[in-house]
Amino acid sequence: MLKIVSQPYAVQSPQQLEVVAVLETQVDDLSPQVVAYVMEQLLHHGALDVFTQAVGMKKSRTGLLLTAICPSDRAQICEQVLFRETTTLGIRHRLQERTILPREIRWVDTEYGRARVKITQRSDIYTVHPEYEDCAQLARQHQVPLLQIQRAVQSAGEGLIAI
Amino acid sequence: MLKIVSQPYAVQSPQQLEVVAVLETQVDDLSPQVVAYVMEQLLHHGALDVFTQAVGMKKSRTGLLLTAICPSDRAQICEQVLFRETTTLGIRHRLQERTILPREIRWVDTEYGRARVKITQRSDIYTVHPEYEDCAQLARQHQVPLLQIQRAVQSAGEGLIAI
Amino acid sequence: MLKIVSQPYAVQSPQQLEVVAVLETQVDDLSPQVVAYVMEQLLHHGALDVFTQAVGMKKSRTGLLLTAICPSDRAQICEQVLFRETTTLGIRHRLQERTILPREIRWVDTEYGRARVKITQRSDIYTVHPEYEDCAQLARQHQVPLLQIQRAVQSAGEGLIAI
Amino acid sequence: MLKIVSQPYAVQSPQQLEVVAVLETQVDDLSPQVVAYVMEQLLHHGALDVFTQAVGMKKSRTGLLLTAICPSDRAQICEQVLFRETTTLGIRHRLQERTILPREIRWVDTEYGRARVKITQRSDIYTVHPEYEDCAQLARQHQVPLLQIQRAVQSAGEGLIAI
Amino acid sequence: MLKIVSQPYAVQSPQQLEVVAVLETQVDDLSPQVVAYVMEQLLHHGALDVFTQAVGMKKSRTGLLLTAICPSDRAQICEQVLFRETTTLGIRHRLQERTILPREIRWVDTEYGRARVKITQRSDIYTVHPEYEDCAQLARQHQVPLLQIQRAVQSAGEGLIAI
Amino acid sequence: MLKIVSQPYAVQSPQQLEVVAVLETQVDDLSPQVVAYVMEQLLHHGALDVFTQAVGMKKSRTGLLLTAICPSDRAQICEQVLFRETTTLGIRHRLQERTILPREIRWVDTEYGRARVKITQRSDIYTVHPEYEDCAQLARQHQVPLLQIQRAVQSAGEGLIAI
Repeated sequence: MLKIVSQPYAVQSPQQLEVVAVLETQVDDLSPQVVAYVMEQLLHHGALDVFTQAVGMKKSRTGLLLTAICPSDRAQICEQVLFRETTTLGIRHRLQERTILPREIRWVDTEYGRARVKITQRSDIYTVHPEYEDCAQLARQHQVPLLQIQRAVQSAGEGLIAI
Repeated sequence: MLKIVSQPYAVQSPQQLEVVAVLETQVDDLSPQVVAYVMEQLLHHGALDVFTQAVGMKKSRTGLLLTAICPSDRAQICEQVLFRETTTLGIRHRLQERTILPREIRWVDTEYGRARVKITQRSDIYTVHPEYEDCAQLARQHQVPLLQIQRAVQSAGEGLIAI
Repeated sequence: MLKIVSQPYAVQSPQQLEVVAVLETQVDDLSPQVVAYVMEQLLHHGALDVFTQAVGMKKSRTGLLLTAICPSDRAQICEQVLFRETTTLGIRHRLQERTILPREIRWVDTEYGRARVKITQRSDIYTVHPEYEDCAQLARQHQVPLLQIQRAVQSAGEGLIAI
Repeated sequence: MLKIVSQPYAVQSPQQLEVVAVLETQVDDLSPQVVAYVMEQLLHHGALDVFTQAVGMKKSRTGLLLTAICPSDRAQICEQVLFRETTTLGIRHRLQERTILPREIRWVDTEYGRARVKITQRSDIYTVHPEYEDCAQLARQHQVPLLQIQRAVQSAGEGLIAI
Repeated sequence: MLKIVSQPYAVQSPQQLEVVAVLETQVDDLSPQVVAYVMEQLLHHGALDVFTQAVGMKKSRTGLLLTAICPSDRAQICEQVLFRETTTLGIRHRLQERTILPREIRWVDTEYGRARVKITQRSDIYTVHPEYEDCAQLARQHQVPLLQIQRAVQSAGEGLIAI
Repeated sequence: MLKIVSQPYAVQSPQQLEVVAVLETQVDDLSPQVVAYVMEQLLHHGALDVFTQAVGMKKSRTGLLLTAICPSDRAQICEQVLFRETTTLGIRHRLQERTILPREIRWVDTEYGRARVKITQRSDIYTVHPEYEDCAQLARQHQVPLLQIQRAVQSAGEGLIAI
């Protein structure tokens, strides 16, 4: 029996605030291979997330805007990575607040094997989210569509909450 | 008990071939508002699908590539719509084969109300897919997260197959 | 006779400052259907504008960066919508100044029917901008190209200023 | 008095068919600067249009899909340009029909100076389209908003048809 | 001394033609995680290249156009992967010619270690292209900027040709 | 002999901080031609960089987010340009810190002619970056692949440092 209950939007959530640094730089003279390497290096040096966006620039260049979200104490090292691995001459940065939900990782069992789910809670509302890597691993192993694995894991995760 | 069974990839599918026309034109002198109207008009005149892609063009223009997929007997009328509603001087077109799966629409009942699911079959594999519009309608009505509605409808749809 | 006069760029404008909240979150596990629903819900709960951008993420994911611009007193409710309707665990937010021009909505008559224009003024410079929805409605009704309707409405709007 | 008359969509158009070659290649190891140069060279060697699209590729690369539309007798030279200026090892190509409208270039006079308009005709429907380069030149010279120039030229062009 | 010689564009190239299958489908109800998995599975089942493009669709959806380039004898299996792992109901496909350059892989030694280069030849023009994976591996190992490694490998590769 | 030496990431850099203004506005009713003109005008009035990003908006519009990075004393004039040349009613702006590397421009000689390189220094690490415009000019003049010119200039630039 499903215990996930929905409510009007005014619920009080146990969400928390943290401060992150956001680094941004436009890139118009690096190849996609190098940009992918820079993303890998930023994550390796502590960035929380890194992403690129295609941007239309002067002189008909379709460049990339590279953004790194870091804990504030990793901002300087990530900036060094950017200066070393790219040819950029300027990096914009700012501190920004981020609201985060507390999360809990739990293991569940399915007919295809074990997988983790991420569970977040706001008031008496729970959200269950299958971990992608575990599901993909089971999908590869059983040659079963990933969507089918994700639904099995989702279902097992919701069972946890109903207990 | 779930009857959706997975198999190695060599299954024989009852899929069919049809022919569609693909119309394409680059647009660099229309505003997004007008492009959205053109998309609406193309769908209204029988296009099966219409989509736009941002393209980097000469002279630093970030234009749009507009693509319409039509039944072959709607290609000419869709071309007329493009010539009338845009300023394009040239439209590329080609016929292309499309493999399609037979589909069936069924209604299911959930604790939130009725919704349709699309069911496709390949050999003894079934895929159940909740209809977005029905789910969105129920989500708005009950102020419940859409993802929660979609899962309830998905689950009810899979129940149909298990019978 | 046209009274829209141009001037060198140093004109003094009656523009005003307001403060808006900007919410941002990267999404890599929601389908475009659900993202479109989230956009609808954010606008319904008071967001001034919502938009998505395709972003290249780690593990070869082409995710979306979702941005909502809200009045500062709607930021919290919009954040709740994001937490409920998506699976995000973190939402970045900041307050930002926005320069706005005073605008006035006026009705004009054309040979195709009535439509609204938005008129903005800076010093003795006026800008007239046809309302898209009215023009699209007239275009559908008369089966006339939208561009033709927009020009008729534009012309009628400029006539207002010349009086 | 405006002579641009609209009609139901079944009008007979004097449009013509031509054949163009479409060349496509994905690029993941060139910088945006080099890609812009390749576009310039393709246009210089006879391509009718060239455009790029951001594509998500394997290994988290945000590459570009480069498309060149050429007259069929320029396809081979454009292919050579691509092989010489990029590092691609494979270029896809196909012939494709393109429907084009006959067009006529005419000069018009406005209070800001002379500019060209492109006029296309389908049955008794005329479309008038201001030439961007002429309008931009007048806008720079008079420090008048480009949109204002474009409307003046549009209006003068429609006057031509009404004669 | 560098032996890479440039010539006018009319050189005769030893390039060859092959036939590839191009599969395309628009996706508006899959998350980026699942799309990345589909890309992985397509490559695993023999696709030569797979890429995604953000597309603007009806109902304000920013979907993806998924394209797979396959050897023609892998087209059917790749189509099965698409039908199994996605919810698409239709896949467009076509055969297309592709011009390819003969390529040769060679090892080179640098002060940072060994790496492969891809060498292509057209008439007496050679292009040397460092293998990304080898360079990235050396860059990680020596904590040296990737661009620096790539240049060292490039240089060593050009030395091969000059012999 | 190459004197460019790499070091662990903790090097002390002579980088400096400056403050820039970032202006942003979403555009859904301007054509790509006009947007490119606005970019040109912003650069002409002192913007350091200007770029556009395709954004998915309400009502199925694929609009553009236009961003201008300016010295803080050019922010007001750039805002005026945006209000005059576009139909936007609101422009978001913020001040942001930017870390920049000191750079030096030097001329180098190659077998194809002279070109500039940009040299940046951090501790004892130098980065050499060929100026695109000079390289493109030489490539056009000698009909040599741009990549080949860039490598020759790069090599000559690194020779400067080794002295």
